[in-house]
Amino acid sequence: MNRSDEQDVLANFAPLFTPRAVAVVGMSGTKVTPANTFARHLREFGFSGNMYAIHPREREIDGLPVYPSFADLPERADYAYIAVPGQALFDLLAGANGKLRFGQVMSSGFGEVAEGVELQRRLVEAARQAGVRIIGPNCLGTYSPRGRLSFVEGASAEPGSIGVVSQSGGLGVDILRRGKSRGLRFSGLVTVGNSADVDPAELLEFYLHDPETRTIGLYVEDVRNGRRLFELLRQATGRKPCVLLKGGRSSQGGRAAASHTGALVSDDRIWTALVQQTGLVQTDTLDEFLNALLILDRLTPNAGRVTENVVLFGNGGGTSVLATDAFSRQHFDVSPLSAEAIEALEALSLPPGTSVVNPIDTPAGTLSERDGEVARDILAAVTDKHTTDAVVVHINVAVIAHMTNRPDAILGNIEHGLAEAQENMRGKNHLVVVLRSDEDPSIEEFRRAMAERLRVLGVPVFREMPEAAVALGAMQRYERAVAELAQ
Amino acid sequence: MNRSDEQDVLANFAPLFTPRAVAVVGMSGTKVTPANTFARHLREFGFSGNMYAIHPREREIDGLPVYPSFADLPERADYAYIAVPGQALFDLLAGANGKLRFGQVMSSGFGEVAEGVELQRRLVEAARQAGVRIIGPNCLGTYSPRGRLSFVEGASAEPGSIGVVSQSGGLGVDILRRGKSRGLRFSGLVTVGNSADVDPAELLEFYLHDPETRTIGLYVEDVRNGRRLFELLRQATGRKPCVLLKGGRSSQGGRAAASHTGALVSDDRIWTALVQQTGLVQTDTLDEFLNALLILDRLTPNAGRVTENVVLFGNGGGTSVLATDAFSRQHFDVSPLSAEAIEALEALSLPPGTSVVNPIDTPAGTLSERDGEVARDILAAVTDKHTTDAVVVHINVAVIAHMTNRPDAILGNIEHGLAEAQENMRGKNHLVVVLRSDEDPSIEEFRRAMAERLRVLGVPVFREMPEAAVALGAMQRYERAVAELAQ
Repeated sequence: MNRSDEQDVLANFAPLFTPRAVAVVGMSGTKVTPANTFARHLREFGFSGNMYAIHPREREIDGLPVYPSFADLPERADYAYIAVPGQALFDLLAGANGKLRFGQVMSSGFGEVAEGVELQRRLVEAARQAGVRIIGPNCLGTYSPRGRLSFVEGASAEPGSIGVVSQSGGLGVDILRRGKSRGLRFSGLVTVGNSADVDPAELLEFYLHDPETRTIGLYVEDVRNGRRLFELLRQATGRKPCVLLKGGRSSQGGRAAASHTGALVSDDRIWTALVQQTGLVQTDTLDEFLNALLILDRLTPNAGRVTENVVLFGNGGGTSVLATDAFSRQHFDVSPLSAEAIEALEALSLPPGTSVVNPIDTPAGTLSERDGEVARDILAAVTDKHTTDAVVVHINVAVIAHMTNRPDAILGNIEHGLAEAQENMRGKNHLVVVLRSDEDPSIEEFRRAMAERLRVLGVPVFREMPEAAVALGAMQRYERAVAELAQ
Repeated sequence: MNRSDEQDVLANFAPLFTPRAVAVVGMSGTKVTPANTFARHLREFGFSGNMYAIHPREREIDGLPVYPSFADLPERADYAYIAVPGQALFDLLAGANGKLRFGQVMSSGFGEVAEGVELQRRLVEAARQAGVRIIGPNCLGTYSPRGRLSFVEGASAEPGSIGVVSQSGGLGVDILRRGKSRGLRFSGLVTVGNSADVDPAELLEFYLHDPETRTIGLYVEDVRNGRRLFELLRQATGRKPCVLLKGGRSSQGGRAAASHTGALVSDDRIWTALVQQTGLVQTDTLDEFLNALLILDRLTPNAGRVTENVVLFGNGGGTSVLATDAFSRQHFDVSPLSAEAIEALEALSLPPGTSVVNPIDTPAGTLSERDGEVARDILAAVTDKHTTDAVVVHINVAVIAHMTNRPDAILGNIEHGLAEAQENMRGKNHLVVVLRSDEDPSIEEFRRAMAERLRVLGVPVFREMPEAAVALGAMQRYERAVAELAQ
């Protein structure tokens, strides 16, 4: 793809991600419909462009000026949120020529049900005639913080660099909301439902060229344009990591997908081949998907080197043993530290019960030496005297809070040590942090605040070691694909 | 094992689980040591027996009467918490003959380090001469709600039916505290560290006969008495499910275990064979271990039938698709509902966008029909008109809270529907509930309260569908082992 094609893609989708005028179809003057709720969210999210409602009879709804059709709008709408069923939709589109660029159709009853397949075909045809691009039908909306566009209450207003396309609206909401809690920030998220017109490959292409997007996430149940997807994913590898969550990989899941988004059942081997031939990172669950996006977006994948050696350090002996097993399962090497690093650690005269080989197992009592400042010295010994691809630090926040005398000071100093290590390691090797909790509300609050401060520093934070192992495994698979495709 | 052996096992360990007199060794009159903290926890936990401190010089510490040695105690201590190092330990044991039953030794520096192997051998010898059973060394304590014995701040005072033995003290704490948050309640938990004397097999035998224990959990890094363990696990199958978390399965994890509890590296194939030949349920992570214990303890494993068919029901189309994949991966069958059940569901005239085949996919709008009362009717259609082994219900609490108008009423009515289904299904098939969250504090609070009410009803509650699939997979493996061993 040459430079001008790239500019075309960005220009084509700019009205979706930074709309100047938005129309809302499906609002009611008497009750609260999803369209009314969307209009409220849009305002609350700080959208500053023009907003219009389209309604056959009303003059004003919830403070918005109302027009009976797109043809009557005083300007072209870049984006319309459309939540009306059946024939009303076709009447609308008939008058939209030149007055609407992207129409996102929330209504269901199209390609995902047998009786709606023909309706969906007609919808696409009507949209083409009107020069409108359709997103959906059977979806929930678009989130684009750069354009102050949102369909989700409580989504973050802070722009990030993860661009997502999701065939499921509900999962789109989960990705935005749970992702926010986990430290993910997004450059955009489009729910495409049945993707009758705009399809995942097109949005992948946009994100690939979009300067605000670093990392791409795809939830798909079915892609019609497989060849194009393959080409784009090859282009992406080495430039932007792409993470896939494929719904309907099992035969029964495929049947469920067919009635969800009208997905054609595809052979899972096609997807496996796609993963093998591109740098696409496949995940199996929503949480794995979020964790892979987090780590690939926060850390810079190594160029020409694959993450293999890891150092594990933290409190909890059994946790260290199980973590070593978990990292081994993900094909990482938890080899002993260099003699120099062990010597440096032994020079710290850590209390009995500490093990400094790798995993570095420091009971809470050890980790609270000098109010937690010991963590900095341990990390310095590792980063200065040992060569490794990644350091994974696990802190049992509940144990520090309950079993030491000055938890705030200790956790604060551990955090400083992590910040310093992050500085030392930046661009050289990966720092990953796991803040473990007992899930009690008071510990969760403490954990959340600490995780948020580490997020701001650019550190990916997870809840458990096996989860971090799987996430770092996604990084490893991506780095390996980049190295192989470069050959 | 005959009846009188069984009585012996129960009688032998009764002083550990329901001690009448407890001694604490390692308290200080001037600072707060782990022993001082233990004594405080014990009092706070409501221990009502006699408590003594052993100390060479003090007369009273933290309100406890002090004696210079076990020999000077006015009565025999059933249990001693011992946190003193090296020679002091041997001096203590020399005077303990007839005055102490179980001594739990917290100190490290024994079999887990090369220079401590001989010390550990001498410790066991000294204890045998004094007629004392040693638990540990290198551990953290014992939790027994029936005896009001606890070493962990914030452990539940509510007795339960899960009995655990853990070679890791830290994981023991995690199991108690995180387990409490997840709805697990325990009949006991003993951390055995290096298990130089009392070993996991002995405690397994106790739990096997203990009428208060229904389900048994083992975290082990090494078991010396493999033959005995095998025999006990064969006995357990069909009587009490046993869940295993084995630390050090990988070779590097085995090395970590050696420096953690002095574990001998064992071939992982031995453990795999043990699992194949008994009903032992193996898990890979702490969370899987907790979730398997939860489901096996809350639900009654089917006698002579293996859970294979599941019905999935809840809000979230993509979630339903991915859940179908997740249950398929665990070898469950998510087959379409019976024609009668589908007919009954269609008679409810649910809104468009609902899918009633299996998975039953009900968007938030559908689930909020009649303020959520629709959930009861859907569940009734499934339980009355369809034959299944398990029903797994997933509720996206965040979506209901944010996208409906009366979330409290809706979630309350869904909960009533679940309670009614639980009544209908009891003893016939399994009801599992997943309460999904966006991890925002306000939603977590809501989720926690709802999960706690369902816990009291006996329903196992999980956070995500793939997690529930893995947990129900543990149930399936146990039921299959019971069926096979019965042949």
